[in-house]
Amino acid sequence: MTKTIFDSRNISMMMDLYELTMANGYFTQEQQARRVAFDVFYRRNPDEGGFAIFAGLEQILQYLEGMHFEADDIEYLRGLHLFSEDFLTYLSEFRFTGDVYAFPEGTVMYPNEPIITVVADLVQAQIVETELLAQVNHQSLVATKANRVVRAAQGRAVSDFGARRAHNNDAAVLGARACYIGGVTGTATVSAGQEFDIPVGGTMAHSWVMYYQDELTAFRKFAEVYPDNCILLVDTYDVLKQGVPNAIKVFDEMKAKGIHSTNYGIRLDSGDLAYLSRESRRMLDEAGYEGAKIVVSNSLDEYTITSILEQGGRIDSFGVGERMITAKSDPVFGAVYKLCAVTNDRGEFEPRIKISETVEKITNPGLKRVYRVFNAEGKAFADLIAGAEGVSQEAVRDGTIVIDPERPWKKRLFRDCTLRELQKKVMAGGKRTEKSPSVREIAQYVRHQLSQEIWEEEQRFRNPHKHYIDMTSDYYNMKMGMLEEKAHG
Amino acid sequence: MTKTIFDSRNISMMMDLYELTMANGYFTQEQQARRVAFDVFYRRNPDEGGFAIFAGLEQILQYLEGMHFEADDIEYLRGLHLFSEDFLTYLSEFRFTGDVYAFPEGTVMYPNEPIITVVADLVQAQIVETELLAQVNHQSLVATKANRVVRAAQGRAVSDFGARRAHNNDAAVLGARACYIGGVTGTATVSAGQEFDIPVGGTMAHSWVMYYQDELTAFRKFAEVYPDNCILLVDTYDVLKQGVPNAIKVFDEMKAKGIHSTNYGIRLDSGDLAYLSRESRRMLDEAGYEGAKIVVSNSLDEYTITSILEQGGRIDSFGVGERMITAKSDPVFGAVYKLCAVTNDRGEFEPRIKISETVEKITNPGLKRVYRVFNAEGKAFADLIAGAEGVSQEAVRDGTIVIDPERPWKKRLFRDCTLRELQKKVMAGGKRTEKSPSVREIAQYVRHQLSQEIWEEEQRFRNPHKHYIDMTSDYYNMKMGMLEEKAHG
Repeated sequence: MTKTIFDSRNISMMMDLYELTMANGYFTQEQQARRVAFDVFYRRNPDEGGFAIFAGLEQILQYLEGMHFEADDIEYLRGLHLFSEDFLTYLSEFRFTGDVYAFPEGTVMYPNEPIITVVADLVQAQIVETELLAQVNHQSLVATKANRVVRAAQGRAVSDFGARRAHNNDAAVLGARACYIGGVTGTATVSAGQEFDIPVGGTMAHSWVMYYQDELTAFRKFAEVYPDNCILLVDTYDVLKQGVPNAIKVFDEMKAKGIHSTNYGIRLDSGDLAYLSRESRRMLDEAGYEGAKIVVSNSLDEYTITSILEQGGRIDSFGVGERMITAKSDPVFGAVYKLCAVTNDRGEFEPRIKISETVEKITNPGLKRVYRVFNAEGKAFADLIAGAEGVSQEAVRDGTIVIDPERPWKKRLFRDCTLRELQKKVMAGGKRTEKSPSVREIAQYVRHQLSQEIWEEEQRFRNPHKHYIDMTSDYYNMKMGMLEEKAHG
Repeated sequence: MTKTIFDSRNISMMMDLYELTMANGYFTQEQQARRVAFDVFYRRNPDEGGFAIFAGLEQILQYLEGMHFEADDIEYLRGLHLFSEDFLTYLSEFRFTGDVYAFPEGTVMYPNEPIITVVADLVQAQIVETELLAQVNHQSLVATKANRVVRAAQGRAVSDFGARRAHNNDAAVLGARACYIGGVTGTATVSAGQEFDIPVGGTMAHSWVMYYQDELTAFRKFAEVYPDNCILLVDTYDVLKQGVPNAIKVFDEMKAKGIHSTNYGIRLDSGDLAYLSRESRRMLDEAGYEGAKIVVSNSLDEYTITSILEQGGRIDSFGVGERMITAKSDPVFGAVYKLCAVTNDRGEFEPRIKISETVEKITNPGLKRVYRVFNAEGKAFADLIAGAEGVSQEAVRDGTIVIDPERPWKKRLFRDCTLRELQKKVMAGGKRTEKSPSVREIAQYVRHQLSQEIWEEEQRFRNPHKHYIDMTSDYYNMKMGMLEEKAHG
């Protein structure tokens, strides 16, 4: 087995206390451990985007496989005087033995779809909530943000420089993983490169330049050690008066020595990046260094990158830090974990619904299937939610009526479509059903969907097209029936 | 030795690649390992506040004490083909042996002050940068945010409910620690309670209510198990028509059975919290339950709490999640790590300065001392930056002229003041100089400063008074001299 990020530590106690108090309550009150189903879904795309990217599944599976409580955990819980001894004994022997259904990691996803469904005994299904949500929320947030930044860069390289401003170690390392899933070229974070086999890179800090008595000496020293990784930071004192001229001097000296670098250039980390990059490009080109790269950094995100490129910035590569790793413009991904079904005395699943004072917080009840629906050109023009019985390929080929729950009066006909079911069984009885894809494969899957399947109109930043999330008539009618019953109950 | 959060894993590789490429460069280029000094400081208070709270020092000391590179780390680095074998051998034997000076954890701090100063050999001082910044940035961000939320709550309890929306595990657990330093009453995150000995608490989720066939049954079952921790979530179906009446019914039943709960009430998690809390309060009071608590949650922060209280919301306790644990309104704390001094051939420290295109990015050069300056009433009316020679208690008692670097023409006289030096030596030769305070002691220190030392005018949310960060004349003149020299160099 390969080493994983959670191998050396037990994260099983990373949960809200109420998971355990409720579990102890169920354990005490219920003779029989009923099987239940919980859905993970989110309600709103970050940054008013057209979609989000699902990430974090691999760490969830690792967590579920390794979940257990150690003697000192039990001792701590006993000291809270909230739990029965029977329950503490149960916890000390706990292993997760449920089933998990999930979208493949990297799937383009939309609000209110069940991304993950956990089917397990009530207590088991309850206490995994917090960690499942923390993984989905953090990694999907950052993967979605990184994908926006990469789209803004229009084919130029984007690197993750965010570790120092990430919300602590896991956010830096798993955030780098999520950035790579979202499409960045690489990361500066060494442990992320080591852990997930993703490319690492970096340039130099101001301290290198400040350490030496003058900038020219600093650049010369660096070029001697790294002739083929020679990106010189030119803004410690004055970019155009000192930094770029000194860099050119060093490139001249390298050339005179017969050194032909394949990777050399400058980095700009302050000031007006559009202007400075244009001027630097002109100076480098005039000196004969058309091959010199211009890397820029300094509080970049999809908005500043778009603006710099609109102003004619001449940039080869973006180093993106704090605003990507924290998803600064919208740093909360609000996925939730809601009970959708409970088995009755005959072992059959019965649907459950939550109504709430806030309309957006109404849930989709029952066991469900979710399909992506493709037209003849292979474009995904809608997703479709059905009950557990599902929908057949034949039905959408020959014609079937579906309902848009936001406009239920406007029935729609699906015909000549193909379906792809989005949830797969990824865990059975607490064991994985298949080998996980590598992070590179997940990133490739994201690229494939965005280039082949997802409409361009959903990928723009301003007023993206809203993907249809339709329901089969049967499923829609079942949900409406429950709503009416509960509202009058 | 007590168990720490990083004991079971090695976070030494959590760094930007350029730390190691620069280190390898220095190692290759320099005969002699010069001692250098780096300062950690930040440039801007989050949310346009008057100050920030310093947090994360304890984890930095743990990291520095434990820092080492294992065989598979070295193997990974070798595979990058960037490093000399001599350097890899050096890394394989690496231990941090530098000195560290820092503000006590929990100190109220202001922009451009050296919060931490690392004095060590160049390579050692360089490669600790990323992790130091990640800890300071994350924990100070969340402690500062939590302190704002606590101030907004005006004495009411505030609990951290944020784990599921935190940016992964460390952000949840160390974020809970930072929230407690900032002043919250407790956290829902079990592992944070276990790790840092801080109070844990929680209520129930919607799943508890949805699991049972009806809300009343769900409430009854909960009250049976937790009569003394009986906060019922009343918004699953309809707060005022079902939820509160059902809760009252259950409280009546408890009373009839002779159960006198000391901790019972309701939680509201959606809808108009000001209105619903007033109405719920009225209904509970009319039923004779003046002692019933009203807990509210749902996307709270200092702004929504202020607004709810202005509208007469009747609330005993706030459960604050995503907006506190991610510091949503301003989720990046921009502390940086800048070289400020390098030893010369005689072993004396010489100052270094960074100029940059962006005025705010100019650094304070050289070794420094920082003082908090108190008036006769014990209020902190300024901080004072001096050179390494420092300032004497006598000088500020008898009268000394200082300079406000933002208004250097306006010289100021300090007289009848007392000084407290803010940096203490916390590590000598890689070993701690003293036992660390507990998280509870740090939180107590924060409360003490805000109630006794820091002006109320700096604590308000709108246009807070800007704390003076003055400089001694000698220090100011030294900095100006360097600026002129570099600008013309």
